Amino acid sequence: RIDPDRLWDSLMEMAKIGPGVAGGNNRQTLTDEDAEGRTLFQRWCEEAGCTMGVDTMGNMFATRPGEDPDALPVYMGSHLDTQPTGGKYDGVLGVLGGLEAIRTLNDMGVKTKHPIVLTNWTNEEGTRFAPAMLASGVFAGKHTQDWAYAREDAEGKKFGDELKRIGWVGDEEVGARKMHAMFELHIEQGPILEAEGKDIGVVTHGQGLRWIECTVTGKESHTGSTPMAMRKNAGRGLALVTELVHEIAMANQPNAVGAIGHIDVYPNSRNIIPGKVVFTVDMRTHLLDKLNAMVAEVMERAPKLCEDIGVNFSCEIVGQFDPPAFDEKCVDAVRGAAKDLGYSHMDIVSGAGHDACWINDVAPTAMIMCPCVDGLSHNEAEDISKQWAQAGADVLLHAVLETAEI
Amino acid sequence: RIDPDRLWDSLMEMAKIGPGVAGGNNRQTLTDEDAEGRTLFQRWCEEAGCTMGVDTMGNMFATRPGEDPDALPVYMGSHLDTQPTGGKYDGVLGVLGGLEAIRTLNDMGVKTKHPIVLTNWTNEEGTRFAPAMLASGVFAGKHTQDWAYAREDAEGKKFGDELKRIGWVGDEEVGARKMHAMFELHIEQGPILEAEGKDIGVVTHGQGLRWIECTVTGKESHTGSTPMAMRKNAGRGLALVTELVHEIAMANQPNAVGAIGHIDVYPNSRNIIPGKVVFTVDMRTHLLDKLNAMVAEVMERAPKLCEDIGVNFSCEIVGQFDPPAFDEKCVDAVRGAAKDLGYSHMDIVSGAGHDACWINDVAPTAMIMCPCVDGLSHNEAEDISKQWAQAGADVLLHAVLETAEI
Ligand SMILES: NC(=O)NCCC(=O)O
Ligand SMILES: NC(=O)NCCC(=O)O
Repeated sequence: RIDPDRLWDSLMEMAKIGPGVAGGNNRQTLTDEDAEGRTLFQRWCEEAGCTMGVDTMGNMFATRPGEDPDALPVYMGSHLDTQPTGGKYDGVLGVLGGLEAIRTLNDMGVKTKHPIVLTNWTNEEGTRFAPAMLASGVFAGKHTQDWAYAREDAEGKKFGDELKRIGWVGDEEVGARKMHAMFELHIEQGPILEAEGKDIGVVTHGQGLRWIECTVTGKESHTGSTPMAMRKNAGRGLALVTELVHEIAMANQPNAVGAIGHIDVYPNSRNIIPGKVVFTVDMRTHLLDKLNAMVAEVMERAPKLCEDIGVNFSCEIVGQFDPPAFDEKCVDAVRGAAKDLGYSHMDIVSGAGHDACWINDVAPTAMIMCPCVDGLSHNEAEDISKQWAQAGADVLLHAVLETAEI
Repeated sequence: RIDPDRLWDSLMEMAKIGPGVAGGNNRQTLTDEDAEGRTLFQRWCEEAGCTMGVDTMGNMFATRPGEDPDALPVYMGSHLDTQPTGGKYDGVLGVLGGLEAIRTLNDMGVKTKHPIVLTNWTNEEGTRFAPAMLASGVFAGKHTQDWAYAREDAEGKKFGDELKRIGWVGDEEVGARKMHAMFELHIEQGPILEAEGKDIGVVTHGQGLRWIECTVTGKESHTGSTPMAMRKNAGRGLALVTELVHEIAMANQPNAVGAIGHIDVYPNSRNIIPGKVVFTVDMRTHLLDKLNAMVAEVMERAPKLCEDIGVNFSCEIVGQFDPPAFDEKCVDAVRGAAKDLGYSHMDIVSGAGHDACWINDVAPTAMIMCPCVDGLSHNEAEDISKQWAQAGADVLLHAVLETAEI
């Protein structure tokens, strides 16, 4: 069993880097704070006897050697980057839970046949540089590295330049590593486990996602002296599409969601009718056909709604992944570990995207979830109990041990 | 008659300061560019034989002496600050048209009984620091200077600090000056004069305005893993209020307008349901009762709409002026000048707020409008013809001359 206090202390130590404004964290990818977090993580891994490798996307791989030099490593990990108003556990628990697993193996002097590698994936959140899970996506061959390097943040800074600036361009080729299996521990970020009173979610599937970046174009003009009949108000386009997305998600219940999280209004002045609004629709469900049908409905109806009020609608997909089904053997290892350790558990679908969703395409993969208070995440008030963290890290340790073979 | 080429050259020279990105201007109040524009204007005024006075709100007053030492001055002027994506004429024509009037009087060696004072009012636009017409409002006793100094821009910088930073805190007490009359020349910023084929709008009234700053509060949470039923999406509150404002404005046709120009979404991340949206409703009409009724309807219905979708609505008025009726004698002077000079003209209501709307409360005031292409303003593509500028400045010169007495 892992040491819950040591795990908790590490979580709290990491949370000191890039503190938020309301008790959470703002440690966005490729910021100075991200660099500081990486350095601390590297030190901890080396203190635990691991060797750190870094690839050209900044993904970090800490290796605990195995006994069989030919055996492929068993991977575990998640991400240390956060949302601008993020919590202390989203991603971080999966990385530091893995570190705690390694520390526990060291304490017990356990040797494994397969090496064990603990990973910190770069830019999982995708807030600063869309899309989410960017670096695991390149690792899995979903994007080219050149394309990833060219992603820009709101200030026009490029991913590649920022990775270089913070000094974390490694020398390993991305995706060159082969994996025996990969496990990701993560908080649920939803309300189900807590409501059902379960310690562990055995993740069998994930939701697929589409991010549709929409641009509504009207005509900037004076709010006072432009008669109503002459207006081309792009803000009304945003309003109609906001409600359309909600309506489509509701029509596809249960197990479908849709909302607009990111909105930029131009020129954003009190007495100027918006001439342009750019915003991103986020739609998800775990059924591929349904997902595609929901997106098609947005793309069919939004242009008409906008046309009717005299503004133009255009859009492009800026992030996407299809609903993943995780590897049966890995899922069984998670379920078996939870059972053997005596933790209450249930099968669950992941509402959020995770690095594991991409890695699942190139290696046998599974995920372990633990509850979070009120299902709240992507919020500084995100919270978990030490017991939940302990259960998650324990199950991670045992699923990895079973797969890495003692 | 004024010299249209000299006026046009000055307009083009001023437009070089704080150029926009699309042919217009970005010379927002109390920026370095504003300071540069002020310095150029001061030089021009002094070259035209005027003495510059500056008050503690940064309002600039260039005096051309009169012959009767006891006669109160006749004022003219407007503002040199622009929107972030503003045109070259909004405000600027009224200031430089006044300068051209003074230059013409100098050329002709005309002496007037009353001194003539040309004014550049600080922060007319109100984009950076709400409300609009801030410094003429303090001059007219609508706001205290302390309150004005405490206004903050989006970065939290205070009006008073920024005025000091650019070096334009004058030594005159605000509002101490007494006026015989005041005339403001401005582009219409609407489509009526051009559509009617008139050179000059004789402004008899203005629309009243209310800026209602609204805050919709929901709950930040993950767009993927928060079930639809558990969402408190502040973005939907924005959507519903956007359409409500439009509906109310349409129900009050003709001669009423309403829109939302300024919107800030928190935390504004693609995969976070907006937890808070702050936006400003701009409502106007030239009938006071109607204006108050429109605002009351927003304040009554918006909270209910928001409550129905599980979010909270609160609001406060951050800018307001009642519909002004301009001074009959001054309006007659404008109408008479247009007629005598042979310019086609019509009576008109100002759609936008102007410094003249505040000054009207403390001195006999009137406005002169000239057309602008497509009624477009608060847009870098704002445009006027040299002939329209000439007609406006000619009428300004003659209305002022008639009032200042030769
Ligand atoms: N887990 C998580 O929040 N990942 C970011 C990608 C997503 O929006 O699902
Ligand atoms: N003329 C002008 O655009 N003034 C700003 C105040 C308003 O929004 O009407």
